[in-house]
Amino acid sequence: MNDLTHRVESLIRPEILALSSYHVPDSTGYIKLDAMENPYDWPADIIEAWLETLARVQPNRYPDAAADRLKQAIRQAHAIPDAAALLLGNGSDEIIQMILMAVAGRDVTVLAPEPTFVMYRQISRCLGLHFVGVPLRPDFSLDLAAMRSALEIHRPGVIFLAHPNNPTGNRFSTDEVLDIVQRAPGLVVIDEAYAPFASHSCMPVVDQYPALLVMRTLSKLGLAGLRLGYLAGQAAWIDQLDKVRLPYNINVLTQATAEFVLGNPAFLDHQVAAILTERARLYSALAGFEDDLQAYPSEANFILFRLKQADATLVHERLKTAGILIKNLDKAGSALKGCLRVTVGKPQENTRFLTALAEALST
Amino acid sequence: MNDLTHRVESLIRPEILALSSYHVPDSTGYIKLDAMENPYDWPADIIEAWLETLARVQPNRYPDAAADRLKQAIRQAHAIPDAAALLLGNGSDEIIQMILMAVAGRDVTVLAPEPTFVMYRQISRCLGLHFVGVPLRPDFSLDLAAMRSALEIHRPGVIFLAHPNNPTGNRFSTDEVLDIVQRAPGLVVIDEAYAPFASHSCMPVVDQYPALLVMRTLSKLGLAGLRLGYLAGQAAWIDQLDKVRLPYNINVLTQATAEFVLGNPAFLDHQVAAILTERARLYSALAGFEDDLQAYPSEANFILFRLKQADATLVHERLKTAGILIKNLDKAGSALKGCLRVTVGKPQENTRFLTALAEALST
Repeated sequence: MNDLTHRVESLIRPEILALSSYHVPDSTGYIKLDAMENPYDWPADIIEAWLETLARVQPNRYPDAAADRLKQAIRQAHAIPDAAALLLGNGSDEIIQMILMAVAGRDVTVLAPEPTFVMYRQISRCLGLHFVGVPLRPDFSLDLAAMRSALEIHRPGVIFLAHPNNPTGNRFSTDEVLDIVQRAPGLVVIDEAYAPFASHSCMPVVDQYPALLVMRTLSKLGLAGLRLGYLAGQAAWIDQLDKVRLPYNINVLTQATAEFVLGNPAFLDHQVAAILTERARLYSALAGFEDDLQAYPSEANFILFRLKQADATLVHERLKTAGILIKNLDKAGSALKGCLRVTVGKPQENTRFLTALAEALST
Repeated sequence: MNDLTHRVESLIRPEILALSSYHVPDSTGYIKLDAMENPYDWPADIIEAWLETLARVQPNRYPDAAADRLKQAIRQAHAIPDAAALLLGNGSDEIIQMILMAVAGRDVTVLAPEPTFVMYRQISRCLGLHFVGVPLRPDFSLDLAAMRSALEIHRPGVIFLAHPNNPTGNRFSTDEVLDIVQRAPGLVVIDEAYAPFASHSCMPVVDQYPALLVMRTLSKLGLAGLRLGYLAGQAAWIDQLDKVRLPYNINVLTQATAEFVLGNPAFLDHQVAAILTERARLYSALAGFEDDLQAYPSEANFILFRLKQADATLVHERLKTAGILIKNLDKAGSALKGCLRVTVGKPQENTRFLTALAEALST
């Protein structure tokens, strides 16, 4: 073993050495229904007005470290309770990282129902925190008895609840979520990444429970490229987490763009409405394949389905050959065995997906 | 103590509870010479071409997680050795955080000469890492004997060397820097944030020492608002650090803007040349106040000076009253007692600063 390899292996934490890199497949040329992106471009007049805003930005000056104007825009656009404070991050990812950095090094357990968003486990592992996953029930609802028991046994400092959940698409029962919030010994982070497509939010009560924080992102609404997430909660929590935040984490272009979009919400509202209409159509169509697959109800901008006989990885590959990229979650022994996840696209994209799926299943 | 306070204090790590928040003073209306920003706006034709580039960006799609095109642009523009790999971050801050996250939780000591960039100590503390500062000599050069001895005693896993150093402005002897690189048991991160204004860089030899990584940022060059930093080094290191990176950390606007600027470098080269000319003039003028202050030679875009009799905090306040914001580093018992730091501004800004300084000193 040479000096370099020896140095690397002596210094880097073993959990990180053991990680494999996050691989993002090349999607050039595909109908891209794999990543929960809003499929719609921006209208020409919006692009023009946005660029006029950016022309007034000074790229040579540091951003507003507190991002006060942007926070005010978020408060107004997303009805944040006045009593709640806000923390901003480059996507929810950076917010998860800040929360976990603030508790790392203590004997803290992180807990989430699984399957769920993989970054809770991934970032916990990166920070050397103990992570406990509690299996969801077969219909992907919360197993409240198992959650209560895990709370007693593990006394988790941080609980993540994706609500609606990714990659399953369902929203948990609000009563059950609040039951966990009330029993939790530390923090409960309700991850509402898919709030624009959901029928319920915990945001209105975020200031009413000492354990509760609510996390959002602009990604699924239509700004995946911007990477802006935020966390709302009582100032006693947010003030501490804000100390972990790198002071200029939100750059001037992100601040200006997010302010612009939140001040001109109509075009995104129309896009969300179109996605909801298409979600209903896509779900009905998938439900029609009842001999071949089970489609799970969704309050997000994607639908999870499980193949009954066909090999999911093979079907995924056939769709790819047909020019359509969706997400393959199939893994032997996993709760998602046989599962694929399709993001709701434009009408013609969804139609092409359904046609290609029918072909892939009949081959 | 109520439930909320009790929860917060039980869960958040004590080092973080003890931190005070990073406070950024409001600078509206001041001549801003406090933050090492490039003072020049972008030419109109550059803004126009840049906005044309942004018009082609898709804000609704996730960024390229690997940022391959941007990395290629950095390689070409900044002469990165072919054998070196690159890691990108939201400013150097995020890169420092990634390096320290990768080693946090092990019994690792972080070391830097001091005074230096405060984030090395701040982020180490946030991550619960032991930080050792080794005092520079009175002229702010490296105390090589003290550094060698600290290396023997503490066996630091990570050493940061800001080169040129902030807030002192000087560059350390290259031989001494390489002496430390060769003796270091782990990693040495040479922070070349001020490379555009310096007479020497370690980048050409970044692939030649197993301990060496070189960090850069586009901030001081003129893109402080963009928050793009990068780290160059051997793939054995970068591949591990890249696992800690949040996969979509560099947003689409940052990628497109940085690519554009690196492909159109002439306007920033002219701005840097103007800053270097003004730095020489500002230094000569400050050196002329020889009874009142000592100005330190600078290879950066700022100049540190120490007041001989006048109270630095009072002079800082008088400059502020005159509409000029510089950085007050004065602190009793510190190596920077009596010190102020002025960023090189536009010619008329520097002249106004010098006039106001003369008045503040004569009052």
